[in-house]
Amino acid sequence: MDLFRALTVEAALAELRRHFQALLETEKVDLRQALGRVLARDCFAPEDVPGFDRSTMDGFAVRARDTFGASEGLPAYLEVTGDVLMGEAPSREIGAAEAFRVPTGGMLPAGADAVVMLEYTEPLDDRTIGVVRPVAPGENVIRRGDDLRRDEQLFEAGHRLRPQDVGLLAAAGIGEVEVYRRLRVGIITTGDEIVPVKAKPGPGQVRDVNSYTAQGQVVECGGEPVLFGVVPDEFESLAAVLRRALAETDLVVISGGSSVGARDITARVIDSLGEPGVLFHGLAVRPGKPTIGAVVGGKLVFGLPGHPVSAMVVFRLLVAPLLDPRAGRSAIRARIRRSLRSQVGKEDYVRVRLVWENGELYAEPVLGKSGLITTMARADGLARIPLDREGVAEGEPVEVILF
Amino acid sequence: MDLFRALTVEAALAELRRHFQALLETEKVDLRQALGRVLARDCFAPEDVPGFDRSTMDGFAVRARDTFGASEGLPAYLEVTGDVLMGEAPSREIGAAEAFRVPTGGMLPAGADAVVMLEYTEPLDDRTIGVVRPVAPGENVIRRGDDLRRDEQLFEAGHRLRPQDVGLLAAAGIGEVEVYRRLRVGIITTGDEIVPVKAKPGPGQVRDVNSYTAQGQVVECGGEPVLFGVVPDEFESLAAVLRRALAETDLVVISGGSSVGARDITARVIDSLGEPGVLFHGLAVRPGKPTIGAVVGGKLVFGLPGHPVSAMVVFRLLVAPLLDPRAGRSAIRARIRRSLRSQVGKEDYVRVRLVWENGELYAEPVLGKSGLITTMARADGLARIPLDREGVAEGEPVEVILF
Repeated sequence: MDLFRALTVEAALAELRRHFQALLETEKVDLRQALGRVLARDCFAPEDVPGFDRSTMDGFAVRARDTFGASEGLPAYLEVTGDVLMGEAPSREIGAAEAFRVPTGGMLPAGADAVVMLEYTEPLDDRTIGVVRPVAPGENVIRRGDDLRRDEQLFEAGHRLRPQDVGLLAAAGIGEVEVYRRLRVGIITTGDEIVPVKAKPGPGQVRDVNSYTAQGQVVECGGEPVLFGVVPDEFESLAAVLRRALAETDLVVISGGSSVGARDITARVIDSLGEPGVLFHGLAVRPGKPTIGAVVGGKLVFGLPGHPVSAMVVFRLLVAPLLDPRAGRSAIRARIRRSLRSQVGKEDYVRVRLVWENGELYAEPVLGKSGLITTMARADGLARIPLDREGVAEGEPVEVILF
Repeated sequence: MDLFRALTVEAALAELRRHFQALLETEKVDLRQALGRVLARDCFAPEDVPGFDRSTMDGFAVRARDTFGASEGLPAYLEVTGDVLMGEAPSREIGAAEAFRVPTGGMLPAGADAVVMLEYTEPLDDRTIGVVRPVAPGENVIRRGDDLRRDEQLFEAGHRLRPQDVGLLAAAGIGEVEVYRRLRVGIITTGDEIVPVKAKPGPGQVRDVNSYTAQGQVVECGGEPVLFGVVPDEFESLAAVLRRALAETDLVVISGGSSVGARDITARVIDSLGEPGVLFHGLAVRPGKPTIGAVVGGKLVFGLPGHPVSAMVVFRLLVAPLLDPRAGRSAIRARIRRSLRSQVGKEDYVRVRLVWENGELYAEPVLGKSGLITTMARADGLARIPLDREGVAEGEPVEVILF
């Protein structure tokens, strides 16, 4: 297939998702190893959490009605008949006009439905307290099931676990989860001009930057990078490496070859290795126009531009959302610091630094010629100028995708 | 030392930083293992990048002055006398009224100072092109040193490396970096009511959530979590575990014991183990008031609240910035979705979900009683209500610290 269409990012993602069969195997992991993993199944609470009514304050567990009408001038007097210890059930039920000492997190005795904070009591003698402020039923109490109810859905399959999510699973007693194995992402750099980082480039040569940035972006997305080295701009060489990468990984990223000739080789190699092949050859974005998106035998293959900045931007927009469900949604908003012009018909992604000033968040474009890697290192994110706009005015709010 | 002062987060951080002697050993790592590591030295560019003038377009390298005055009606005719190949120096210098074919990324021949895009040329015959639009000197060219100049500072010591930063180092030819070793963070859970995640809690018992969330937060900050298990609310038991943790790690986080009694034990244990001991016992924040900050023998010790939510919030505000230089700076701004009341004299951190609507970013408070872990799992960040405010009005912009 050879369409040579320039798609928007949104259309490209939709097209790729139609063909991408992410039939990944799953594995069971201990909750201690679950951070950053993607759930393979919906998760449900096996029981109520908490499993009992607990106090949220240091104070006295009471029957709320015994405190109604209490005030400083006329306290409600209660007899202290029990002491709740942490981790233990109270020894008996509470009676009328009684109070049990209870610590923060302690269990309420049967019959008690509220907790009076220590601060609102006065000791009368060693067995009696005066409550100077009434409490309502449920006050200062987390009831059984208030946090989680048995069978309540905690997460959907496809959710990538953050620390608080792991905490929620721990609270629910789920000590082991089924997750997708990490997506193996093959990384190939093409280019006759590319030399390894530790080499000294000769005239016309540049170092392999893209395999380092791609490796980092893959790791951040929860994937497992697999490096396939640098390949010259030559059909058979690239075909051999890509064939091997497709056999050993789930998704392949080829960067390099922004020139028409090199990209033509990449596209022809992809098409030669399986169906349907190249789905699009050009993105309606700047930077990043010369991007190839393809599917070969159910596996995604991306031809990213050779410019390190363009490659990183396209990875962030196109590859990351497919690897990490969270990557598609981390846009925020800031005011663009100066007017920018853009092209109608393309989404512009402008590298910006985020700066707070006078209670407002500003997105400051990072100045620099196209392709300069320093602009990426100085940027916090990408400000998006929509397709249909000719530019944005100074001070206008823009969407910013964070790195 | 026993001050029992409630400090603001800012004051607490300042106090801790004064005492914290982070004399970490450093290690050299290959750039392939450098992602997420913290640089121990300032980094400087060893050479100019690029090391030569390169084209940013497919087109023709020219002397700009040979195209001045060109137009569709009266093109500038140039003789094509060379072909630049990727990765190679051009074979000779360019002459007057000459053009060299050059691909994107190709090296400019000596004497050439601009590149004409292919689109703005017409072939006259197989040796001559007509240029229909003039180019200025430097147009479509990245000159030697435009990206990095030799000896230019790339990063400061203390910078934590993101993918694009690793790419910048790769471009500069820095294949190995000196980084601080990962900070080892000891994690202790205290509480008579705490049982392991895989156990079924009896009446009054709850599962160990905090060691899971703390472990995750430490990993996200680039630290190395070391688990010390669950300890009962008893002086000698906690003292023994804390002593061991201090010997084996660089910083210790003890969570649990929000009740006055349990916190008292934690504070006394800390003070018994070294100087200066507890620096503050209370934070002017909600949630998270019952927080202990201490230094023992140059190492930080935190007593976080037992409530999982409070513990996570305090970790994010107080511990994370000390582990990860990036964590202190990821605040964004959104409009609070509904009015909220807060206490003067305390900073409130409200769990919020971030929602886009009509081109605006809103922070929607996640509803739920104090201490519910589900509120953290549903939140994207914490909206800050400053110390001096009694609340925020619906629609007001607030600072949001992202998770």
